[in-house]
Amino acid sequence: MTTTAVTHIASLVTNDPSLGNGTPLGLIQDAAVVIDGDRIVWTGESSKAPATDNVLDAAGRAMIPGFVDSHSHLVFAGDRTQEFNARMSGQPYTAGGIRTTVAATREASDEQLSANVAHYLAEALRQGTTTLETKSGYGLTVEDEARALRIASRHTDEVTYLGAHVVSPDYADDPAGYVDLVTGPMLDACAPHARWIDVFCERGAFDGDQARAILTAGRAKGLHPRIHANQLTYGPGVQLAVELDAASADHCTHLTDADVDALGQGDTVATLLPGAEFSTRATWPDARRLLDAGATVALSTDCNPGSSFTSSMPFCIALAVRDMGMTPDEALWSATAGGAAALRRTDIGRITPGARADLVLLDAPSHVHLAYRPGVPLVSAVWRGGQRVE
Amino acid sequence: MTTTAVTHIASLVTNDPSLGNGTPLGLIQDAAVVIDGDRIVWTGESSKAPATDNVLDAAGRAMIPGFVDSHSHLVFAGDRTQEFNARMSGQPYTAGGIRTTVAATREASDEQLSANVAHYLAEALRQGTTTLETKSGYGLTVEDEARALRIASRHTDEVTYLGAHVVSPDYADDPAGYVDLVTGPMLDACAPHARWIDVFCERGAFDGDQARAILTAGRAKGLHPRIHANQLTYGPGVQLAVELDAASADHCTHLTDADVDALGQGDTVATLLPGAEFSTRATWPDARRLLDAGATVALSTDCNPGSSFTSSMPFCIALAVRDMGMTPDEALWSATAGGAAALRRTDIGRITPGARADLVLLDAPSHVHLAYRPGVPLVSAVWRGGQRVE
Ligand SMILES: [Zn+2]
Ligand SMILES: [Zn+2]
Repeated sequence: MTTTAVTHIASLVTNDPSLGNGTPLGLIQDAAVVIDGDRIVWTGESSKAPATDNVLDAAGRAMIPGFVDSHSHLVFAGDRTQEFNARMSGQPYTAGGIRTTVAATREASDEQLSANVAHYLAEALRQGTTTLETKSGYGLTVEDEARALRIASRHTDEVTYLGAHVVSPDYADDPAGYVDLVTGPMLDACAPHARWIDVFCERGAFDGDQARAILTAGRAKGLHPRIHANQLTYGPGVQLAVELDAASADHCTHLTDADVDALGQGDTVATLLPGAEFSTRATWPDARRLLDAGATVALSTDCNPGSSFTSSMPFCIALAVRDMGMTPDEALWSATAGGAAALRRTDIGRITPGARADLVLLDAPSHVHLAYRPGVPLVSAVWRGGQRVE
Repeated sequence: MTTTAVTHIASLVTNDPSLGNGTPLGLIQDAAVVIDGDRIVWTGESSKAPATDNVLDAAGRAMIPGFVDSHSHLVFAGDRTQEFNARMSGQPYTAGGIRTTVAATREASDEQLSANVAHYLAEALRQGTTTLETKSGYGLTVEDEARALRIASRHTDEVTYLGAHVVSPDYADDPAGYVDLVTGPMLDACAPHARWIDVFCERGAFDGDQARAILTAGRAKGLHPRIHANQLTYGPGVQLAVELDAASADHCTHLTDADVDALGQGDTVATLLPGAEFSTRATWPDARRLLDAGATVALSTDCNPGSSFTSSMPFCIALAVRDMGMTPDEALWSATAGGAAALRRTDIGRITPGARADLVLLDAPSHVHLAYRPGVPLVSAVWRGGQRVE
């Protein structure tokens, strides 16, 4: 193995509070990072860096851990540009919503779906996202859900079974039958290809009892739960997530005080998805309230063609700072270490010895510029597992 | 000269309503564009494109005119990251505001200032901005304002004299004396290096009478007026702009019905700067109201280190669609043809024979994706004056 040092980093976010300035970000000024193979082996002040085979001078730029995007829906086909355009133009449009994407996804070939996942993963990687969770949920048959997960698992380790995205149109008159399918034959076919099980617990999708049944069945097959909770309305999702020790409750837009308390006390991460609120002109989730209650907050894109077609973690950071009460430091932490916590991972989301060498160099002197310079592509270099990709 | 055709453009925005689908965008499906030297010489359906020396297949991607960013403040030095961070974190910070930048700009060398302008212009060009206006306004002495304009004019043709940004701290007790300077010796030194004269007409800066005196003096020296108007409060700026036939009234956040009527009837463009409202958490300007009154609306970044440090026109489009009542089509028009109108230019902001070959190819099938996929860097190729730059 050859070792490489990146030196003279103006400002390094380690996410280790024992380092640097002692804040949660563990900021080190004029820092260096040494990587060996796919791992980080040394982090500290540039002047103290050990000798290495290669040296790259970061010349006053900032470095942060690769973004951990813990929530996306990338196994899809079809085009919903017209639907978005009509919605934003105030024009009537008889949109099929998720059903449009389900129909197109079922019709697509494996190759088309795989190319689509690869396209959006590469796009995200160029923007600094070095870990990206993705889900099924646009198949809604045993075969199509299993296919989605097989395809997803070729591209990422973080794969989630979301047969319970909506009740399949094939079961419009028999939602209980669809829950039986999701917890029975579909689960059997899907469990080998996924790490997580998820359910959209919302009025019009699955209620608390159905969600509990689905997640419990998944857990019995070795999948760990996460929940789409409290996005559009108040509901039982968040407290169910904490009760079941789900890794994450995602959206968390409509929360009672009891919901906030539960997240503050449990180990379930509150994953906020500002791209969804942006793209649907909805109420912002209140990150400040969650942070003040002691909850762990993650930020993620929710990248999907219906309600949040962004793959940009910097964009989510800028929104979280402007509209959700997060400081630039908190938002950066949530987009890296927070995402890692939402995936129960300790090997990513930090720049410390032993962690995977997932590094992002910014064309800016500080991570604060991700909020200070919204929309500007500031990612100038990305390493994933020690490999330079951009 | 060699000719080049870009063919099989999935969707081409020409901004010529006589072409294509007959809307203001003049959209042509499966289109081609031919360029010869620095000019566009042919636009139409791909199957009818004439033979050329070179052919580039756009393979299903969309093309739009290069963005025209008609309002920025790029001749500056100094770092205000801490001030932004404190503001967004709810921390107290004794910020000097514009004065901080004035002090740093005065201290900087010509080379530093020139490098800064070049840096941000290149950053904007990579994001598809092929025409960028910029201003003085951080010098506020005869020498420093003239220097700023000399430096700016090395990088862009669209240079604006903004000695009347704020009253210079050197004249804190004598604002009338500062107006005399701005309309006298400073104007004499600056006029040879600028095309435009601008004034920040706002409570705490310059009132209506001062603004009229400044713009009238500038016009007598061959500069054409534009105004920072009605950003923070209601005021006389917009109607003064129309009265003086200013090319543009910029910001237009607080407008009376009479202001809107004036913009609807006059030739002054209403230039909206959503990056400023985003970065200062201010009220959004109401583009819908202006469009419905018949006003010409432009979108611009206002790129500056204090109140809007974005250089991203796609980001401004996404905000205008979400929060200002513009359709995706209207926002695209305003970011291209609208900017051209705000600079009284007819050679840019459109893709028709005779126009400058300023072209942007998107990694997306439609310009709608600039709003549909907020924050995602979708610009995949840029030509400026026929030269490929990205
Ligand atoms: Zn989701
Ligand atoms: Zn301005």
